[in-house]
Amino acid sequence: MLERDKTILIVGLGLLGGKYAQVLSGKGYTVWGIDNNPDTIQWALDRAYISRGADHPARELVENADRVIFGLYPTVLLDWVEHYGSWIRPGCYVTDVSGVKRGVVAPVQQMLPQGVEFIASHPMAGRETSGITHSAEVDFAPANFIVTPTEKNTPEGIAWCCDLARTLGFARITTLSIAEHDRMIGYVSQLCHAIAVSLMCASDNTSLADYTGDSFRDLTRIARINEKLWAELFLWNRDNLIGEIDMFDAALQKLRDCLAGGDREGLETMFRLSTVRRAAFDKKEKTPAASDNT
Amino acid sequence: MLERDKTILIVGLGLLGGKYAQVLSGKGYTVWGIDNNPDTIQWALDRAYISRGADHPARELVENADRVIFGLYPTVLLDWVEHYGSWIRPGCYVTDVSGVKRGVVAPVQQMLPQGVEFIASHPMAGRETSGITHSAEVDFAPANFIVTPTEKNTPEGIAWCCDLARTLGFARITTLSIAEHDRMIGYVSQLCHAIAVSLMCASDNTSLADYTGDSFRDLTRIARINEKLWAELFLWNRDNLIGEIDMFDAALQKLRDCLAGGDREGLETMFRLSTVRRAAFDKKEKTPAASDNT
Repeated sequence: MLERDKTILIVGLGLLGGKYAQVLSGKGYTVWGIDNNPDTIQWALDRAYISRGADHPARELVENADRVIFGLYPTVLLDWVEHYGSWIRPGCYVTDVSGVKRGVVAPVQQMLPQGVEFIASHPMAGRETSGITHSAEVDFAPANFIVTPTEKNTPEGIAWCCDLARTLGFARITTLSIAEHDRMIGYVSQLCHAIAVSLMCASDNTSLADYTGDSFRDLTRIARINEKLWAELFLWNRDNLIGEIDMFDAALQKLRDCLAGGDREGLETMFRLSTVRRAAFDKKEKTPAASDNT
Repeated sequence: MLERDKTILIVGLGLLGGKYAQVLSGKGYTVWGIDNNPDTIQWALDRAYISRGADHPARELVENADRVIFGLYPTVLLDWVEHYGSWIRPGCYVTDVSGVKRGVVAPVQQMLPQGVEFIASHPMAGRETSGITHSAEVDFAPANFIVTPTEKNTPEGIAWCCDLARTLGFARITTLSIAEHDRMIGYVSQLCHAIAVSLMCASDNTSLADYTGDSFRDLTRIARINEKLWAELFLWNRDNLIGEIDMFDAALQKLRDCLAGGDREGLETMFRLSTVRRAAFDKKEKTPAASDNT
């Protein structure tokens, strides 16, 4: 578990930053918060998510924090570290919550002062909602927490980040390289969002809403999307995502070819393959196989 | 409600035919069953889903039934009616459960004897499972029941089919033309299945199962598919489905173009549109708007 005597500063009290604050404060840790929205700070103070807060980059809070967690969008994170990162004191461990890692981790590590260690991580617990007022709805227990260490990281820093995840309540904590992480996230998350958005944008079929069953609703639930955040995530990972879209599209065109050619056997072959592969996912659903491998 | 004194014969005791038998018997109706699998007949008799049954097209059951419900795949239905439809007695109302209607309804109406009325319908309550042993898992209450009348149908026949749906427990009963039904089903059901299957077939990413969250699982749940049934449904509706796939693909390619061109505003515009449209579906989720309009 995390050391009790360290002060944790969370910069960006959105859905995830807010949840971090809620859980850590609830467990008795000293948590401070910075967010450019004064209402957010007041909301967090009122509920004791944080014991001190500021609606601007308050130097005194940054300088006196032992641990810093960035709950910011990638571009905002880079901008913040460029301007105020020098205030973070040596010996401090720093992490983030960004959904993409290439283009983010190396610059942040380079910009931070000597002696400050940035251990990047990604709590895969996002939702369709955003903002601290929805934080209580977030559930870390079934979600994956991915640590993406680089050669700049120490075993102690990585262990701290895993301790943080355990303290937050994640049961599934794994490490991936930055390249592995971004390839994985392009497939299991971004491609799904690209498909759901495209399905909703394809035509105005809201008149058919009365007839939609579970399949359509499940497929499009994630089409309700925070547009600023997801435009960032998509663009930071565009090569991977374009590759995944093309791979998916090739399969869809193969299915279309079977249809156009009346190829019943071809369709059945695809259906059998998809059934077998999906069953493997169901099996894994029962036993959380990912474990803390640090 | 349905007339108490009529004997109902269900031909094909699969997932839906079996559920019909279970509900109707449970409500005190006389239900007979025909299925070519003797184990299915025994299973249904043992649980009193049916009071009489046969594992072959038993002429005596067919001739003495007042109402006939076909729980068969489209091609099997056509074949059955061609061979044994002449045994059905005049005055009998007949319906089915087929997921596509063009190419099925007109031939069946033409082949049935004078005085036998076929009112086609589609209970939109399918699942990933199949067979009578899974019937108990089916829930009709939240599902749509679509009646697709033609100019051959009488108001009395259509009213019977709606009574059947109400007795089965469907709360949302609507009528659509055959063409409207098949266009609707191509979009809200078949396109979703085509997407889910393509996503699973695109590449062998089962190694990533540990990292999948709700988005991926929701999107691919329906990739577990009964390949014989769905190959039939897709091929019977291929022109509609190909049109839907092309429309979806155009939207996906537009998204890909935004990515390739680094067009953040283009992405955000799509995300805003998908969010607004999906929200309309959520609203409709709360109030079952479809009503019995016969």
